[in-house]
Amino acid sequence: MSPQAPHDTLLIPGPIEFDDAVLQSMSHYSESHVGPAFVATFGETLTLLRKLFQTTDAASQPFVISGSGTLGWDLVAANLIEPGEDALVLSTGYFGDSFSDALTTYGARVDKLAGPVGGRPQPAEIEAALAQKRYKLLTVTHVDTSTGVLSDLRAVVRSVRKVSPETLVIVDGVCSVACEEIAFDEMQLDGVITASQKAIGCPAGLSISMFSGRAMEAFQRRKTPPGSYFASMKNWTPIMKNYEANKPSYFATPSPQLVRALNTALKQILAKPLAERFQKHVEASDKVKKAIADLGLQIVAAKPEDQSHAMTAIFLPEGINIPDVLPKLLSKGVIFAGGLHKEIATRYIRFGHMGVSVTDSGRGEIDKAIQALGASLEECGYTKA
Amino acid sequence: MSPQAPHDTLLIPGPIEFDDAVLQSMSHYSESHVGPAFVATFGETLTLLRKLFQTTDAASQPFVISGSGTLGWDLVAANLIEPGEDALVLSTGYFGDSFSDALTTYGARVDKLAGPVGGRPQPAEIEAALAQKRYKLLTVTHVDTSTGVLSDLRAVVRSVRKVSPETLVIVDGVCSVACEEIAFDEMQLDGVITASQKAIGCPAGLSISMFSGRAMEAFQRRKTPPGSYFASMKNWTPIMKNYEANKPSYFATPSPQLVRALNTALKQILAKPLAERFQKHVEASDKVKKAIADLGLQIVAAKPEDQSHAMTAIFLPEGINIPDVLPKLLSKGVIFAGGLHKEIATRYIRFGHMGVSVTDSGRGEIDKAIQALGASLEECGYTKA
Repeated sequence: MSPQAPHDTLLIPGPIEFDDAVLQSMSHYSESHVGPAFVATFGETLTLLRKLFQTTDAASQPFVISGSGTLGWDLVAANLIEPGEDALVLSTGYFGDSFSDALTTYGARVDKLAGPVGGRPQPAEIEAALAQKRYKLLTVTHVDTSTGVLSDLRAVVRSVRKVSPETLVIVDGVCSVACEEIAFDEMQLDGVITASQKAIGCPAGLSISMFSGRAMEAFQRRKTPPGSYFASMKNWTPIMKNYEANKPSYFATPSPQLVRALNTALKQILAKPLAERFQKHVEASDKVKKAIADLGLQIVAAKPEDQSHAMTAIFLPEGINIPDVLPKLLSKGVIFAGGLHKEIATRYIRFGHMGVSVTDSGRGEIDKAIQALGASLEECGYTKA
Repeated sequence: MSPQAPHDTLLIPGPIEFDDAVLQSMSHYSESHVGPAFVATFGETLTLLRKLFQTTDAASQPFVISGSGTLGWDLVAANLIEPGEDALVLSTGYFGDSFSDALTTYGARVDKLAGPVGGRPQPAEIEAALAQKRYKLLTVTHVDTSTGVLSDLRAVVRSVRKVSPETLVIVDGVCSVACEEIAFDEMQLDGVITASQKAIGCPAGLSISMFSGRAMEAFQRRKTPPGSYFASMKNWTPIMKNYEANKPSYFATPSPQLVRALNTALKQILAKPLAERFQKHVEASDKVKKAIADLGLQIVAAKPEDQSHAMTAIFLPEGINIPDVLPKLLSKGVIFAGGLHKEIATRYIRFGHMGVSVTDSGRGEIDKAIQALGASLEECGYTKA
């Protein structure tokens, strides 16, 4: 039996639609956070995350902590860089700017390298910036949820390795993990932080991350204590290691229900090859992008190589406003999000295409949304130029 | 239909047993964190918290943030005290000591005043300590989950008002909110932090707190920025005010499912007078304490006036160990917790009596646990001296 009452289809760039089995796991009966059944489930979940991130290096360390995706920034900023050290933030929208704020909160000195709105910094700029000073870490937003701009992680790592090989490469993968390709070891990433409610397909409430052995060593070499208590790797690392070794452990009470739901979501994802999953997201994205071109509309991420496969930020036609379009979409059972990037917020809408809406084609949600978008614009008086 | 498969009764001091309707809310279909339905639910939840904390002062500010109860310590330590300022921590167990660690993480200077194991600091000691220096804030653990020691909030506030009226009084109410009496305005509290999974009766994953107008003014007067990004009151206060005013707002994605479950739990609690709820917890606690006395066992909180009504920490008889007793209890369908206070951890067990196990007497869980405890000890060879 489905736990879901009939409802409008949520196609914002997170939270996404969730599978019935995942939602059923959310209502699991209460259990002890240190009891054997939950300890086994939590431990298995951490191991499943290694598979999702495609890391087999035993030194890689997964973390699952109650919190929003934002907590991942604190985890990085309070543990992997010390006050007075330098960070280079590659910004492709709102979320790069906010990651920068999190870093400065804990005393890091931040240089921000931003692409034009809808674009991203280029390798030559990144290399020039890296050559200026010794950066402890560099952050890159894999997919910026505010713009739908995709970063090229392999190119970024190449630039870092060429100019400043010791700089840690930290990826904000909130809107990319489980839909864009992330091969943690092969890409030589040092950290990926994400959240549960986007392509992973588990309700919001978990900060999920993976750090490399190199990052964990950098943490161990800190001269100052971590800048946060709740987001302290010193407090959490032994807990995560114990749970994964099937031993109960306590720092702060995890959420058994959310961890059960994450476990269910990860098992669904890993039941099929990840390459197949990524390809399905590419195909759904291509379909969306073609439909938008057919409608004569522009995408915020102007160049095809800058466009994420997780979501699409769509400029509205001249004279048609967000408060005109979103209610018309809703009347057709489709929920999109408004704009978020401050320079263009009133001029575009966001269409998330991640998770079961993409992988379970029987739901028909992407096609329904494409049709609803065309019909809504038509009702607003739009005709293709 | 119950979402709960048959399961052993969880009577640890949190997470507690949850009501079916609360668990059903956990599997609510996915919805936008800024959509009108969720905004209304979140706003109402914040207003319901004012009722739970018994505050009608419009300047009081509730916060509901994804995280563990521990996050509440960061909220206090990173916002209400500045580096180099002094805090007085009244410790009655493990959790007072940890609150102290959280405060020093953000640069506060901490003096700790601890009672003997199983006891609490007395008014004369508190007043003597307060007279020594100008403390920005004092923290008191209402019920320490590691010992079951209850603090007397009214007496603590009296001491503070007498000696150092400007000192903020911050209560760790993780194991007391919704079972021990908390009258926020009348008791003149400045802050109470708690979590969802104890007497409030909502699955773990939410940090819940209430701060007074005086505390919020102290925050506004900070000379340095907050020490945390994710736990920053600067980032969260406008969000909470907006949601409560029924306006969508964004800093970090909340968990719609957990907030729905909290909403359900609060409505259940507030459907009856709070005084009646507190009284039921007193009666259940009295019954447990009497049964323990009848068994000839000692309680960690030795004096009756120091004993919480949320839980009971019970010394095991000489020669009987935790690994002997807990499996026997489990075989009778009852889950208790082991010890947590480092000086006596191996010598006692903890029995949580909060929430539906107490208020829904039809569940019969307290009586079942009392019987199971007696039978288990007997099977271990214990006979009352």
